[in-house]
Formats: sequence, C-alpha cells, structure tokens
Amino acid sequence: MPPGSGEQAGALESAIPAHLSVERTRTRRVGDNYTPPYPSYSVRFADGVSSLVCAFFGVQSKPPLSRGAKAASAGMWELCAQADGPISREHAVHTDEQGFENQVIIAYWDDTEAYRRWFNKHRDVLIGAGLILADHGRWIEAVTPDASGLETLYSSNTFPEGVARVAAGGFSGEIQEHGYWGSMRERLPRAQTEALDPAGDPFVDAGSSIIRVEPHDNLAIIRSGQDWSLCEEAERESYFGDVEPHLRAGMDFLTSEGSSIGCYANRYMTSSDGEGGVLEQSFGLSFWHSLGDMERWAETHPTHLAIFGSAMKFLQANVGAKLRLSHEVAVVARDQQYFEYNNCHATTGMLGAGRPVASHTDVTS
Amino acid sequence: MPPGSGEQAGALESAIPAHLSVERTRTRRVGDNYTPPYPSYSVRFADGVSSLVCAFFGVQSKPPLSRGAKAASAGMWELCAQADGPISREHAVHTDEQGFENQVIIAYWDDTEAYRRWFNKHRDVLIGAGLILADHGRWIEAVTPDASGLETLYSSNTFPEGVARVAAGGFSGEIQEHGYWGSMRERLPRAQTEALDPAGDPFVDAGSSIIRVEPHDNLAIIRSGQDWSLCEEAERESYFGDVEPHLRAGMDFLTSEGSSIGCYANRYMTSSDGEGGVLEQSFGLSFWHSLGDMERWAETHPTHLAIFGSAMKFLQANVGAKLRLSHEVAVVARDQQYFEYNNCHATTGMLGAGRPVASHTDVTS
Repeated sequence: MPPGSGEQAGALESAIPAHLSVERTRTRRVGDNYTPPYPSYSVRFADGVSSLVCAFFGVQSKPPLSRGAKAASAGMWELCAQADGPISREHAVHTDEQGFENQVIIAYWDDTEAYRRWFNKHRDVLIGAGLILADHGRWIEAVTPDASGLETLYSSNTFPEGVARVAAGGFSGEIQEHGYWGSMRERLPRAQTEALDPAGDPFVDAGSSIIRVEPHDNLAIIRSGQDWSLCEEAERESYFGDVEPHLRAGMDFLTSEGSSIGCYANRYMTSSDGEGGVLEQSFGLSFWHSLGDMERWAETHPTHLAIFGSAMKFLQANVGAKLRLSHEVAVVARDQQYFEYNNCHATTGMLGAGRPVASHTDVTS
Repeated sequence: MPPGSGEQAGALESAIPAHLSVERTRTRRVGDNYTPPYPSYSVRFADGVSSLVCAFFGVQSKPPLSRGAKAASAGMWELCAQADGPISREHAVHTDEQGFENQVIIAYWDDTEAYRRWFNKHRDVLIGAGLILADHGRWIEAVTPDASGLETLYSSNTFPEGVARVAAGGFSGEIQEHGYWGSMRERLPRAQTEALDPAGDPFVDAGSSIIRVEPHDNLAIIRSGQDWSLCEEAERESYFGDVEPHLRAGMDFLTSEGSSIGCYANRYMTSSDGEGGVLEQSFGLSFWHSLGDMERWAETHPTHLAIFGSAMKFLQANVGAKLRLSHEVAVVARDQQYFEYNNCHATTGMLGAGRPVASHTDVTS
C-alpha cells in the first residue's frame, strides 16, 4: 500500500509526487499509518517540470553598501526582467562575518533551458567580466536541481515563499513525511533508492580576477525561512524572546565554525525591498558537503537542538501560531552548480570551500 | 559488507551481535563508514543466552516507608539469595506522583528457566498472597525479553550497570549504531526485519485483591541511568546545574502526562543501599505502548530535546567527563511480561494502563 493511501492516514499524501515515486530500496522510518503531530505541506510543480533553478546574484562592499554595489544590484534586478528571466525574484540583505554588507537577488526559474539562454546572454554583465570593480564585489551562486533532488516543507499552505513562487501545481495536501528526524531525506525522491553521498573534491579556478569554484557531486543546499509579519504582539515577543536567539546562535555557529562539521558556508539573511528597507522575514542559506553532514548537525549539535526544541515549544505554546516557516533542500550534481566570485573577500560563500572540511563521515551510504 | 567491517570504521563493531545479525529488510540510517561522534558500548551475553530477565519487586506506603513495607522488601531481598535466584540484585527508591514511598529491588537473570523455577516457588510470598497488607502495597513488574528484543548502550566500558551485571561476555568494542536519532531501533536485532508495532489491548484481571495487568505484544521498556559518583566538583555542578533539571522536568512530564503520548508509566528512581541511604546514581524506568511512541517523545518533545541538548552540550564542555550513562531497552511479547499489584494505589506502574492512551500513531509499521 503506497504511503498516504492507508485508512488511518487517508487525509495525508506523500511529499514525493506520484510521478517520482518508485519502489524504495531504502526504507522509511515511518509506517503508512504514521500521523505527524501538526500539518505541513510541500509544493507541486507543473507537469513536465523536471528541474528547477535557484540563483543568488550578490553584491558586496564594506558598509555602507557602496554606490557601485547598489548600481550593480539594480542592474542585475533589471536583467531579471529581460526575456527568459526568472519567474520569481526577491531581495535580501546580509552583513557577513567579515563585516561586509551583501545585497542579494534570489531568482527562481522552473525552466532550466530558459535559464541557460538567459544566463549565457547575461553572465558577463552579472559578474562584471572585463570591469575593474573599484568599490564592490559580485557573486553568483546558482543550483539547478532535478525535481527528484529537491524537497520542500511549509507550515502554511497559503504562503508561497521561495521556490513555492514558481510551483505551478500549488501546495500539496497535508504531507506525511515530517515531524521526525530523517524526514528531510524521506521527502527527497532521489533518496528512495540513493544514499546521496558526496563524491569528488572542490576545485577552484582562480585563473583570472573572477574565481570559479566547482564543488562536487551531491552538494546539499538548504534555504530555511521564517516570516513573522502576521504575528500578533505576544507571539512576536515569544518568537524574538525564546526562538530567534537560538536560531541566531545556530546561524552564527555555522557561519564561523561550520567548516568543522561539513558546512561550507552559511548566511543568515533578512528579506528586503531592495531599497534599504527590510521585511519581517529572514532565512538561513547554507551549502553542505553532504546531506548526511546536514543531518548530523541538525540532529546532534546543541545549537540546532536548541533551535528545534524552542520551535517545538513555541508551536505548542502558540496554538494557531502565525509564524510561517518554509524550507527547501536540494542535493545537486557537480554540473548543476555554478559558483563565481569577482573581487569578493576570501570567505565569501563557496570561496571558503578550499578550507579543510573535517566533517563527520556521512551518516548514510 | 557487514557493518563494522569497513576500512574506515575498522575499529567499530555493530551493536547487534554476530549470531543475531540477519539480512536487513529495514535499512539503517547510517552507512558502513559512519563514525559516531564519541565512543559508546553495548554488552555481550554469554554464548547460548537467548533471553534475559529483568524484574522489579516493589513495596510502597505513605511516607515514611512503613514497617511492613520494609519487612516485605527485606524478605524479597532474602528470597533473591535462594536457589535459582538472580545473578544481580540492586535497591532503588522513589517517591511517586501520589506522594507514596516506593522501595524496589531490581533483579536480573540470564537464565529464564532458573527464573521461572525461582518465581513459581516464591511468587506468593513476593506479592503477599493470602496476607492482609495493612500498611503497605507490593508489586512485581518483570520482563523476559529475547536477546533479539534487547539493546544496551553505555558511555563507558568499565561500568557494568543494570543488565550489564549479568553480561558474561562483557562489553563490546566501540559500536557504530549510536549518536543519531533512530539508532536505538537500529541496535535492536529484531528491528532488522520487524516494525515492532504494538498489537492487542491491555487487560486487567482484578478478580481478587491482587490485580494482574496483561498489556500487549511489543510493549517497550526503557531503563536509562546516570552515575555521578566519579565526577569532580566542577562536572558535578555542571550536571546538576545544566543537565539534571531538564532530566527531572522530562521525567515529571512522563510521569504526570505521559499517558497522552503513549507512556503508560514512568519512575525517576534513585539507587539506594536498601537501608535508607541513597547512592550517587539515578535512573528512569518507563513502560511504553510502543517503541515508536518512545521514539516520538525522544525526538520531538521539548522536554526530551532539552535533556538531549543539555547532555550533548555537557559532554562537549566536559571532555573526559566522568558522568557514566547507561541505557537498556527491551521490546517484549505479551507472554514476556508480568505485572502484578497487591494493595497499591491506582496509578502504580501498569495499573494505570487502563487510562486512555492517545498516542501518536506508531512511527514505524
């Protein structure tokens, strides 16, 4: 009996869409009649969408954000409006561990070919090829996961955040695979039969002023967001008093010490309007040596256990909570990644991937 | 390649002894080259030991412990020294949620037949059959798991606590299956191929003053202990300041509200000398509707996440910690359980099993 079709769990469906469901060689931790402790949703993509694009176009300078950086970001934003541009584009800002200001455009496509046409046409302008960048750096970080290498999780089905903005199929019904450790992996279609171990080593091409980093197969990426714009005062106080400090500590740990546990880079970003104003929304974005390393951190590191525990407590104490949580995870092949940096400081994003990564051995193989 | 024989994990062995290892139909979460973040050990039983006995012989009264209760407990202790008696016997004390004092003898056998001969001979005296118990109650709680339905975990391999006292094979080498959620199940030989779902409903036989409770197949039991007798002052302060309050809160939750999540009964006990003195050692003992319910609590409930998180933090902050942790879990068939109560208050142990158990649906099936 396929997951979700059981009598006791009749209202639930699998996070894995029917057309990507195969006979598992790797068993789930939950049975067909498992019921999660609270509802959550995945998104569904349009029929025929077999891969997606999530791209980050960043500019960076010492604070305050330089005139050149602002102009470059504005130019990137305009390029996104060109033919074959992204379906969805957002802004975010981030002060990084070196004290640099970063402004980022996050863009999503559900058509990899359109993205390739667009990117091939605009890459030089985006990264500033041939320019001397006097007062800023630019970076591009893009992944193009197969639909089978992507999973999503949302606490609300009326909140199309991140990749959900390009999910023409809208939200799923309540899904079954959440609320337990290991569920992230069990929502990933590829993980029905694959261990998703990393293979190969990062390679840095620093032949010019523009540095290209080529990581390895099965790099894992997570974007995990929270939106408190709808929260009433009491809930807001509880979030900022009891939950967000733990979240910030965990993000700080990943940013400063993540390389010791398999996290290449982490940014704790705030959504913004692109004109200096911030929204009531934040997200963490991190790149990992493997999904297994991400699991190890989430499941055993005190910083994440504190985040998870405080969030669980918060959700129980605030029934009908208005805080909206979103999460998207991709595991990508080497050729589904693009990391390029021009005039950026040495630990920007995957530029730091040359640092030793003394990760735990991967949990699954 | 069997777990533990891999090159990268050459020093590790499986918690599952070789003679109980079968081809898995339920995949592990970890691969053969997974390395846990810190060492832990299981115990090995003598060749030919296919089942074990763990029995609790309790007396109870309003505080202070009555003369009759003390005399009964002393009698039980002496019976344990008779032919076919347990290999190991210990004392513990516990003030329960009704304010009653309980004194308990914990006895282990590695020979089920010897236990049966001993128990059949002494059961009437143990439970006080035919007596009018004026000032105390008595209870017997015993399980006789197959070796394939038992798993153990110890932080030290020089600390034969609990069932380790009857493990003639001593401690294993460093085992592989620990340090991640789901590892408890993956240490259980039966779970290589079985979901361990509960089956059937508790039945209470209250035909006489002695009440017998017959739970159901695949009841799960955990005894989880901590010993701080070797801790230096700083470590002791850290344990009692940062860890133990969370442990106590979790134990209190299970005792008072556990029935809402599948925990029939919980006791947070202190090891004792049987003469009113306590040792620097405590343990939790709880009975669960299923292993899946126990997993749900451990993995998602704020009280246990706080315990786990504080313990992880403690272990990282106290390298070479002298706190010794032990853990034994059994999943038992209906006929491997014996629960009997004479003149005990209504929520003593499995007497409370008649209470509604609105557990989550089991995680695994």
